[in-house]
This record gives sequence, structure tokens and C-alpha cells, in this order.
Amino acid sequence: MPAAILINQQFRLAARPIGLPKPSDWQQVSAPLRDIADGEIVVKTLYLSLDPAMRGWMNEGKSYIRPVAIGEVMRAGGVGVVVASKSPRFALGDTVSGGIGVQSYWLGAADDASGNFFKIDPGIAPLTTWLNTLGMPGMTGYFGLLEVGQPKAGETVVVSGAAGAVGQSVGQVAKLMGCKVIGIAGGQDKCDFVVKELGFDACIDYKNGDLREGLKQHCPEGVDVYFDNVGGDMLDTVLTRIRMKARIVICGAISQYNNTGAIKGPANYLSLLVHRARMEGIVVFDYADRFHLGVAALAKWLKEGRFKSREDVVDGLEHFPDALLMLFEGKNFGKLVLKVADA
Amino acid sequence: MPAAILINQQFRLAARPIGLPKPSDWQQVSAPLRDIADGEIVVKTLYLSLDPAMRGWMNEGKSYIRPVAIGEVMRAGGVGVVVASKSPRFALGDTVSGGIGVQSYWLGAADDASGNFFKIDPGIAPLTTWLNTLGMPGMTGYFGLLEVGQPKAGETVVVSGAAGAVGQSVGQVAKLMGCKVIGIAGGQDKCDFVVKELGFDACIDYKNGDLREGLKQHCPEGVDVYFDNVGGDMLDTVLTRIRMKARIVICGAISQYNNTGAIKGPANYLSLLVHRARMEGIVVFDYADRFHLGVAALAKWLKEGRFKSREDVVDGLEHFPDALLMLFEGKNFGKLVLKVADA
Repeated sequence: MPAAILINQQFRLAARPIGLPKPSDWQQVSAPLRDIADGEIVVKTLYLSLDPAMRGWMNEGKSYIRPVAIGEVMRAGGVGVVVASKSPRFALGDTVSGGIGVQSYWLGAADDASGNFFKIDPGIAPLTTWLNTLGMPGMTGYFGLLEVGQPKAGETVVVSGAAGAVGQSVGQVAKLMGCKVIGIAGGQDKCDFVVKELGFDACIDYKNGDLREGLKQHCPEGVDVYFDNVGGDMLDTVLTRIRMKARIVICGAISQYNNTGAIKGPANYLSLLVHRARMEGIVVFDYADRFHLGVAALAKWLKEGRFKSREDVVDGLEHFPDALLMLFEGKNFGKLVLKVADA
Repeated sequence: MPAAILINQQFRLAARPIGLPKPSDWQQVSAPLRDIADGEIVVKTLYLSLDPAMRGWMNEGKSYIRPVAIGEVMRAGGVGVVVASKSPRFALGDTVSGGIGVQSYWLGAADDASGNFFKIDPGIAPLTTWLNTLGMPGMTGYFGLLEVGQPKAGETVVVSGAAGAVGQSVGQVAKLMGCKVIGIAGGQDKCDFVVKELGFDACIDYKNGDLREGLKQHCPEGVDVYFDNVGGDMLDTVLTRIRMKARIVICGAISQYNNTGAIKGPANYLSLLVHRARMEGIVVFDYADRFHLGVAALAKWLKEGRFKSREDVVDGLEHFPDALLMLFEGKNFGKLVLKVADA
């Protein structure tokens, strides 16, 4: 039992957003945490992962995961520390990762599916890295690229959102696979980062220049694998430059998530026919039974200095609504993480 | 050598069409055939294949095959009979299939790549069937479904343009593979045909009813394989009904070929992500080295009465421009063939 009464701060979904989420779409709730029952644990939130996919969870309708209900705590992955336990699975002080939600404490059955907590070793990497390279973005990049993109050494891999959470992992894994890697990112700083820090072969600044020309210049023979986090015009432009038998990994479409009208479908999709290419979706949860293998591989590369993990940390749970918007404005530089408390 | 002078009637491409091809996009040319040289043959055209893909060949720009040049005889596959030969490869009277073009005679080197003639056996099936089930549409359906669609017994296969050339083969091959097969076609006659004659499980008349409701009714568990010949809204609607790990074969997009503006891309393409599905293009020429296997399989099924081939024959080369338009208005019932001459 916690000695003192813990006050839980929460962000609950108040309304389904139209376009970009606005302050009134959130309800802030502050209440004492109830007592812990047998089999339960209390996790104190340290860091929360902020991801473009969260925008999709706020919509009604069928998707790969059920929508967050109105009045429900906003879903979010995060890392935290076990501050109370009536479960043999977790001990006080365990560092864990799981579905904490946008709140300062998670309280529930240790085996509750919504939490799905597992212990992590903070000795392997900083906690924020467990939400990036060693977390869902890293797993998405690793399994999405290798299983769906199926890159071969010598091939040209293009990744959008290159400085973002998934993009950094995709590009670095592709380099380690012997591919030529071209990033697409917004701004010179991000482009410099992925080339100079992460070792990409080149990066096209879509905000300052012609993507089509950049692809012509850097991928003169065309694109073998395109890992798409952006959708919209970017996807359409890359479709004009694919090679025969190209693979397009559909991981996300951040440019379209806040549309109030229809999604922009890829008008150039018949390039798939011309080039006998394929476009295929990836959802990271499908690879859950192999996450330990992905974590092992990425942790090894991190330790060897062959892989880097960059996070952009915003401090304070109260900044959640504004921090989330940074993703859709491309303001984050690296994987966006919300710091909630010190360990 | 022909005893009499042969007059060759040709349709040449006069202009690149904007939207539907109009009469002024064609130039009719009539001229005596030149003398045949060593290594050459003369093929008298009997039947020409009219295909939606021809519309694409009339456009400028990169595609899976070079565009027909302005002033060039319009490209078309066909069957004919060798009426003159100075090549050891073909004898007088041989029935052949190949790239005849929209003309009454083909004259050129027997090994010319544009002709790419091969002998066919008219004893196996009627000549028009050699342009349908045993020709490119049959090969497209056979290899496209099996290699790209990869249907498994018990799965649900949906095919658009179900009564058309490729659609009939796709559906019948899928039935023989043990799949549940739902066609989409325009009009009750076509729907009755594919169900009663070809043995599809059901057919949705998109001109008379709600495609979405039809898919809900006939594919209650969703669509495993969608073989798309149509594109546009139809593709978008099917995307809302796919199952996990679905395969969408992009064979064509007849609804979009005459657009004067941009192609309509599939706004629901993120369903690929939600369902971990893939969309992949197919071009039949990729399977040329295995056509003999496809022909053997389909000929056997035809002979056994387990497969049907329906052609819609328009008589007279002079009707070529109007006959071609039938495809885009859905007026053909079965594979559209232009009869040019009697054997």
C-alpha cells in the first residue's frame, strides 16, 4: 500500500476530434487513487510515448484496435515504476513498460490486457529509449522493414518521417542490411541528423525543395522499398519513382490523420501494376511474440555503437494536449516522449 | 507469293485521345501490301482482341509497354492464318496468334518481336477462344489469380468485370481451386451468366443495387482475394470489406482509363494497414515462359467441360473504333473480339 494517498492526474477523451484535437476534446481529471486489491499493481508513470497513431484511436469506427471510448483515459504506452504490488508477477521498484495511459498512475490487475506490462532493464538503455528504439517504434521499423519491406543488400530504401521514431529505426536497420538509404524529412536540421548521425546516404528536405527531383537525384535507378509514414502527396510522388517489384510498406499516413474530409488515396497506385509492385500494411502488434528478438538485436547494435536512438522529451503531464499536436506539425525532432515524473 | 495484290486496311493512331477515343484519333489507311522478303511471313488477320489495356497504350508516358506512336498501326493481339511465308518457321496455312495490329494483314520477319507469332491448334478450341481463355485474358486470370492472389481453398474471392475476358477466367479458376467466388458485373444478364453458366456462387449487379450491401450479404466474413479490373469507387468499396491478410490483385482500372483529370486513387487504402493486407500489380507478360502451362491447364478444363469461354464478336474491321468504345461502356458481354475475315 502506498503510505500516502496518491493523486492520479488523467487526460480523458471528452469528444471525438474533428481535424486536429483541440483543448475541449480533453477532460482533465484529478482524483485520489483507490485502494489496491489482490492481484493488482500500481505503476507510477515516468515517461509516455506520444505517437501519430494516437490520433486514429480517437476516431470511432473499425480499425486495428478498438477506439478509445468517450470518457475513457487516453490510451498511451509508457514506462513506469511499480510503487505498489499485490501480485507475485511484479515487485516494488520494478521498471515496467506497457499501456499506462495518459495518467500519472496506472492501477489494475497485473495481468490486465490493457496494461500488458513487462519488466524492462534500465541498465540496457535510458528509459526514453525503451519507448523508441527498444519500444514500439523500433519494433515497427525492425519488423516492418524486414518482414514486409524485405530489403536486399544493395537495394535502395526510402523512408519518410526519417528523423521520427519509426523512421530512424527503419533507416538504420536498412543500412545494417547493406542497403542504400534515403530519408525524407522536414527541415535541414533533421536531414543533417539522419545523414551525419544515423548514417543515411542522403536525406531530402521536403519542405525546402522538390521531392521528385530529390528522388531522381538520389535514387537514379528508382526505389526498391518505400517505408511510408506520411501518405498523401509524398506517397504519390514516390510511386512515380518505384522500381520493378518494389515493396511499399504502409505504416502510417500522418499527413491524413487530421483530415476533416476524405483521405487522399494514392492517385498513382497504378504504378503498382506498371512495376509489378506491392503495397502492404504493417501493424506492429502482429510481431509481439518476436519482440524479444527485435529488442535483443537492437540492444546489441545500440551497445556496439552501431545504432542511435533520439528522443524529443517534453516535460510535464499537463503539456500532453500541446505536445501531441507537435507530431502533426512536424515540430518534434526524434521520437516524442512526455516526461511525467522522475523515477 | 500472293498471286493477287493484297490490300491492307489499317487503323493508325492519329492523335493521343483526351478521354474516350473519338473518330479523329484514328487514321484509316488502305494500301497494297509490299512484296515479301526472305525470312518474312504474311499473316491474314482473322480475329482481333479488343482490350481495355489498349486505351493505355494510346497514352504517352512510361508504362509496362511502350506507347503506340502517332502514325503507327494500333497495337492489337489477334489470330490469323499464314498466307505467305519465306521463313522456315511457318508454313502456308498455319494458324497463328500474335501481335497482328489493327490491320487486315501483318507482314514482317517471322521472328519480329512485335509480331511474336506462335502456332495455335484450332482443333483444341475455336479461334476466338484463343483470344480469350487460351489467350492473354485467360493467362492474365490464371497467373494473376494463382501467383499474385494466391487463393486458398475455402477463401472468398471477389472479381470485378466478372463477365469480361479476364473476369470469367479468374472466377472459374478460383472455383476450381475450391474458393467461394463472388462476381461484380453490370446488369442482370451478365450476373445470371456468371452464376448459371460459369458457376460463380453469386454476382452483384453494381448498376442495380448497392455494392456495399451486396458484399456484406455475399461475403459476410469479408474478402480474402479481390481481383480488380475496374478501380475507382469499386476498389474503394471492396477495401472496406477485406479480411485480415487479404490480397488485392491490381490488373486494371477500366473506370479510370478515360479520365481527363487525375486517376481516382483508393481513398480507403489504409484498410491495407488495418487488415495487414497487400495490393499488388500484375502484368501478364511476366509469365510468358509459362504460358504453355497455363494453356495446357485451361485447355484440359475446357475439354472436360469444367470451364467455359464466352466471346462477344463484332464483325468487320471497319467497326474497330466503335467496338473499342463498347468496352468502356460495359456493352460487351464476354471477351470482345473483332472479326476481320473468314479463315
